[in-house]
Amino acid sequence: MRVIIIGGVAGGMSAATRLRRLNESAEIIVLERSGYVSFANCGLPYHVGGVIEERSALLLQTPASLADRFRLDVRLNTEAIEIDRGRRVVVARDARGTEELPYDKVILSPGARPLRPPIPGIERALSLRGVEDLDAIVAAAAGSRTAVVIGGGFIGVEMAENLVHRGLRVALVEALPQVMAPLDPEMAAPVHDALREHGVTLHLSDQVTAIGADTVTTASGATLPADLVIAALGVRPETRLATDAGLTLGPRGGIAVDARHRTDDPDIYAVGDAAEKVGALDGEPILVPLANTANLAGRRVADDIAGLPGTARRVLGTAIVGVFGLQVASTGVNEKRLRDAGRRHRVIHTHPSSHAGYYPGAESLALKLLVDPESDAILGAQGVGRAGVDKRIDVIATAMAGGITASGLAELELAYAPQFGSAKDPVNLLGHVADNLRSGVARSLQWHELDAAVAAGATVVDVRTPTEFAAGAIPGALPIPMDELRDRLGELPDGPLVVHCAVGVRGHTAARILTQHGRDAVNLDGGYVTWRAGTQEVGAA
Amino acid sequence: MRVIIIGGVAGGMSAATRLRRLNESAEIIVLERSGYVSFANCGLPYHVGGVIEERSALLLQTPASLADRFRLDVRLNTEAIEIDRGRRVVVARDARGTEELPYDKVILSPGARPLRPPIPGIERALSLRGVEDLDAIVAAAAGSRTAVVIGGGFIGVEMAENLVHRGLRVALVEALPQVMAPLDPEMAAPVHDALREHGVTLHLSDQVTAIGADTVTTASGATLPADLVIAALGVRPETRLATDAGLTLGPRGGIAVDARHRTDDPDIYAVGDAAEKVGALDGEPILVPLANTANLAGRRVADDIAGLPGTARRVLGTAIVGVFGLQVASTGVNEKRLRDAGRRHRVIHTHPSSHAGYYPGAESLALKLLVDPESDAILGAQGVGRAGVDKRIDVIATAMAGGITASGLAELELAYAPQFGSAKDPVNLLGHVADNLRSGVARSLQWHELDAAVAAGATVVDVRTPTEFAAGAIPGALPIPMDELRDRLGELPDGPLVVHCAVGVRGHTAARILTQHGRDAVNLDGGYVTWRAGTQEVGAA
Ligand SMILES: Cc1cc2nc3c(=O)[nH]c(=O)nc-3n(C[C@H](O)[C@H](O)[C@H](O)COP(=O)(O)OP(=O)(O)OC[C@H]3O[C@@H](n4cnc5c(N)ncnc54)[C@H](O)[C@@H]3O)c2cc1C
Ligand SMILES: Cc1cc2nc3c(=O)[nH]c(=O)nc-3n(C[C@H](O)[C@H](O)[C@H](O)COP(=O)(O)OP(=O)(O)OC[C@H]3O[C@@H](n4cnc5c(N)ncnc54)[C@H](O)[C@@H]3O)c2cc1C
Ligand SMILES: CC(C)(COP(=O)(O)OP(=O)(O)OC[C@H]1O[C@@H](n2cnc3c(N)ncnc32)[C@H](O)[C@@H]1OP(=O)(O)O)[C@@H](O)C(=O)NCCC(=O)NCCS
Ligand SMILES: CC(C)(COP(=O)(O)OP(=O)(O)OC[C@H]1O[C@@H](n2cnc3c(N)ncnc32)[C@H](O)[C@@H]1OP(=O)(O)O)[C@@H](O)C(=O)NCCC(=O)NCCS
Repeated sequence: MRVIIIGGVAGGMSAATRLRRLNESAEIIVLERSGYVSFANCGLPYHVGGVIEERSALLLQTPASLADRFRLDVRLNTEAIEIDRGRRVVVARDARGTEELPYDKVILSPGARPLRPPIPGIERALSLRGVEDLDAIVAAAAGSRTAVVIGGGFIGVEMAENLVHRGLRVALVEALPQVMAPLDPEMAAPVHDALREHGVTLHLSDQVTAIGADTVTTASGATLPADLVIAALGVRPETRLATDAGLTLGPRGGIAVDARHRTDDPDIYAVGDAAEKVGALDGEPILVPLANTANLAGRRVADDIAGLPGTARRVLGTAIVGVFGLQVASTGVNEKRLRDAGRRHRVIHTHPSSHAGYYPGAESLALKLLVDPESDAILGAQGVGRAGVDKRIDVIATAMAGGITASGLAELELAYAPQFGSAKDPVNLLGHVADNLRSGVARSLQWHELDAAVAAGATVVDVRTPTEFAAGAIPGALPIPMDELRDRLGELPDGPLVVHCAVGVRGHTAARILTQHGRDAVNLDGGYVTWRAGTQEVGAA
Repeated sequence: MRVIIIGGVAGGMSAATRLRRLNESAEIIVLERSGYVSFANCGLPYHVGGVIEERSALLLQTPASLADRFRLDVRLNTEAIEIDRGRRVVVARDARGTEELPYDKVILSPGARPLRPPIPGIERALSLRGVEDLDAIVAAAAGSRTAVVIGGGFIGVEMAENLVHRGLRVALVEALPQVMAPLDPEMAAPVHDALREHGVTLHLSDQVTAIGADTVTTASGATLPADLVIAALGVRPETRLATDAGLTLGPRGGIAVDARHRTDDPDIYAVGDAAEKVGALDGEPILVPLANTANLAGRRVADDIAGLPGTARRVLGTAIVGVFGLQVASTGVNEKRLRDAGRRHRVIHTHPSSHAGYYPGAESLALKLLVDPESDAILGAQGVGRAGVDKRIDVIATAMAGGITASGLAELELAYAPQFGSAKDPVNLLGHVADNLRSGVARSLQWHELDAAVAAGATVVDVRTPTEFAAGAIPGALPIPMDELRDRLGELPDGPLVVHCAVGVRGHTAARILTQHGRDAVNLDGGYVTWRAGTQEVGAA
């Protein structure tokens, strides 16, 4: 049997090594257009910044090492230019010419290519996808003092950070009002703060209109110094080979595949960034250009070729990025998407400590949970903070995979000692809050609903301490500290009440007291901290 | 309604605050024998070592703060000495005398008391449970240069570390051949190494026979200098009140409760360390003296009293401890327990990186997974390493709660960027290995089965590099580096083969090659690293 794998990195090489383990006699040919295989794409930005000092650390394998260990026939600088399905050959081209390679199975893992919009001067912008790109950026950065990064997705943000590490003055231009689109706006606020604190100038809700010799011009009229220009506007699936071969694309522009990762030709598989995935929300087709998904699908295809049964999985798109020490992670869908889809949803914001507050080094986190109000299913989560965000998002992603409800998070037994968590872990607390909302023990209001509530006659009651109040408060809020509330009920005006504290904990207890005294009281979800983050972002936009 | 809560810390105070939120008018009296409520038990050892500098950081609440916020009637230095069920009164005693307090409901959360075996001189040994104990230890440590800690459970190990931080010379005596009983012996090896590296002298498989004026004598004949003696031999549920009141104890010596945490008197609840839990393996009664479980149960009891429906949960006993920077965590049952129970089980050891090896700061972990070979259910997990162990154990505990199988761990979408994990996270890899064992793609042998296999005629083939082999190898192993294996098949003797590498990854590929060449080959699970850890421990015992 001859299997031809197109693309020799995450999806492709995972398929190749697994297939070899399952089938010692198959002929496995890996075609790779670039000069490198099996490299660490995800580490590339960190070599730009010198965080990963040695370029060689990123190059995990060579054709020789893969031949020695896995008897793979890996061909660098060799592009698959055609799949002739009628004759069952892949046409490969290298420096010496073209060759027709007959196949029994083809695995397409050609990845994605960076978007390069037709901005005047775009030729000068560098994008980062492979090792050659890395070398070009490192070379260009060496002579540069200023840089503009176009795009605030995870690669854009990583590039901004690493160019700062390299000593460049960096501006980031993003068409949306926020960086990191998987986050909802109020969750992006601390990311903006971190970028700005480290000297990155943010140009949000703005667009690059032209790239000049050493500047970049934006729609808002700004001219930004730019010895170096990085285009990080996202990626588009590499589908040319597939479309030329008459294979179907899906609605999101990726190669359409079935649960076994087969295209509509059962002898041609497609995995990784090039292929569409099945989303976890409704089984909808989605693009998830992430390495975990690519590697797993590659392995699954090898299993399928070897006749091992597989399982179909829906994809959450769990992702994380570091931003100057801030951990920014998400899983499942965000609120923007639920709103666009017209899906009812319940929202919870918390700001717990990464570990017990009395043990040194605890960091404050922002967590957000999205819940289906009918089924109590977890729809998505987001987290931002300097420690322990990765753990909480992984736990929630696992709970989602296991069908644990939002309230069920309260029951999880998570490892607790003071340097690692709290007796009620932040994930447990999300479950408690969800349970309260589900059972009706608590009612909450979102930061963006506050103005309407006030317009409709609600009074905002701030139950923080006078010191906290003095440091900044919601305009018009009536300050009554939590511990005085029971004695000062008479001071509250008639009508609905919105209580709030800093993060929601005291507000919850206050709302319970008021409700039991017959008042119509809701707790401002996430408290002053979430309100400020949300209104700050909206104000800035 | 009057609710009397006995014990004002983890379980008791969690019940009290929740009950107040649910019922503003209930009379809630909390009786606490010691001079402190709602303190951070789990932080106590770290104040001994100065890691938590301020004693006040451990004292989260006072009766006054709890009265202000929660209208709780908290009585310090007040011991419940009797529950008279006939007259429905709790008899409380303080310095002024006794008082009878009528009740509608009683919540027992009296915790546990440290075991103090009848060793001659035991009076001089200090144990750590509450704030008064802490003060006594801090005072005694001030004049001490040497200390003996009796018991290598998590409190013993924490005390050993913190006494070292304080500058004392510390010996630890443990009757078992290992510290940290929740770990299996081969997993305890790195914990022993960490303790020894930091100057703690370990006396394993030994027992203290007498405590003298400034020494401790052990069964093996050692005399250890001991200005300070800490008894940390585990805890026994506080059950006197319950038994005096005629309530039933369970088989493990804790108060027996139903799924609603009710004793056999429906008006008396019991939670926390004093009560038995339902184990996750077979629904067996177990003791789990951990704060997460105590806090959750306290909250659940408040819900029950307020008429909110609850869910019964089985308890995994997820736990973690830090040992000189090493993270030591476990969930579910261990191999010792499965063997004792005569339960068939499958074992997997891995040694992955805490995050991508090419990104600075990656640490090597030891993970162990226990699997039910019939159902593929996860039965337990253990982890030891300097980073990221907490995350992996929490993810596995969550997977267990969600009914995800061992093979299903491969499918989890965990947040990946190079500073946080790997494209195939360590948890995913456990899933791949489990899947291979389940499907028969791989077969493995445990470290403790090797001698028998060799005795039965197997040849051990070491597929590591010559350099690795030279640095230490399994006696009698035949070295053939992985990448030469296909060309040197002729050198292998007839009969069964046990292949191994350092940790199991290359061994897996090697075993697949050999199997496909018709050989009877198994992979030594966890490779040389696990074998060495296991045999080292057995040798030391
Ligand atoms: C800078 C950067 C940082 C990233 N960071 C993260 C991260 O932190 N976490 C994360 O989960 N993901 C990250 N990713 C995404 C991750 O690398 C991809 O999702 C993953 O590599 C996709 O795997 P793939 O096999 O589909 O494509 P790739 O790994 O890109 O491999 C595709 C290969 O196919 C080759 N190819 C394309 N067409 C042909 C052809 N016709 N003939 C021959 N060869 C061809 C390409 O040269 C390429 O080498 C990052 C990506 C980049 C670029
Ligand atoms: C040093 C130490 C470190 C720990 N570290 C961890 C850790 O890292 N992680 C973890 O999960 N767990 C840890 N624990 C365990 C955790 O603290 C307990 O599981 C938890 O506190 C149990 O809660 P509880 O309410 O059952 O008992 P406790 O919190 O102990 O509260 C019981 C209270 O009841 C009082 N009491 C007893 N009898 C009476 C009576 N008759 N009348 C009035 N009052 C009475 C006692 O004085 C005590 O204050 C640690 C415990 C200790 C001692
Ligand atoms: C380097 C590369 C070729 C290695 O491929 P690989 O051999 O499949 O992967 P690993 O080295 O992680 O080993 C995994 C295999 O070892 C097995 N394994 C892992 N730990 C084991 C252990 N302790 N005992 C037994 N088997 C073990 C796994 O089950 C798996 O085998 P399987 O697929 O047959 O189940 C491939 O991962 C690659 O190209 N990576 C770089 C590209 C990339 O991923 N880029 C994007 C992210 S930066
Ligand atoms: C200090 C103590 C009295 C606080 O009790 P508490 O008020 O129940 O607990 P928390 O402060 O964690 O708050 C949790 C409550 O706030 C709610 N909450 C938390 N974050 C919230 C948010 N962002 N928005 C709304 N509500 C929130 C939770 O739902 C929960 O309320 P509920 O029980 O009604 O559902 C108690 O935890 C205690 O005694 N702890 C110390 C003892 C101890 O645990 N020792 C062992 C470990 S060291």
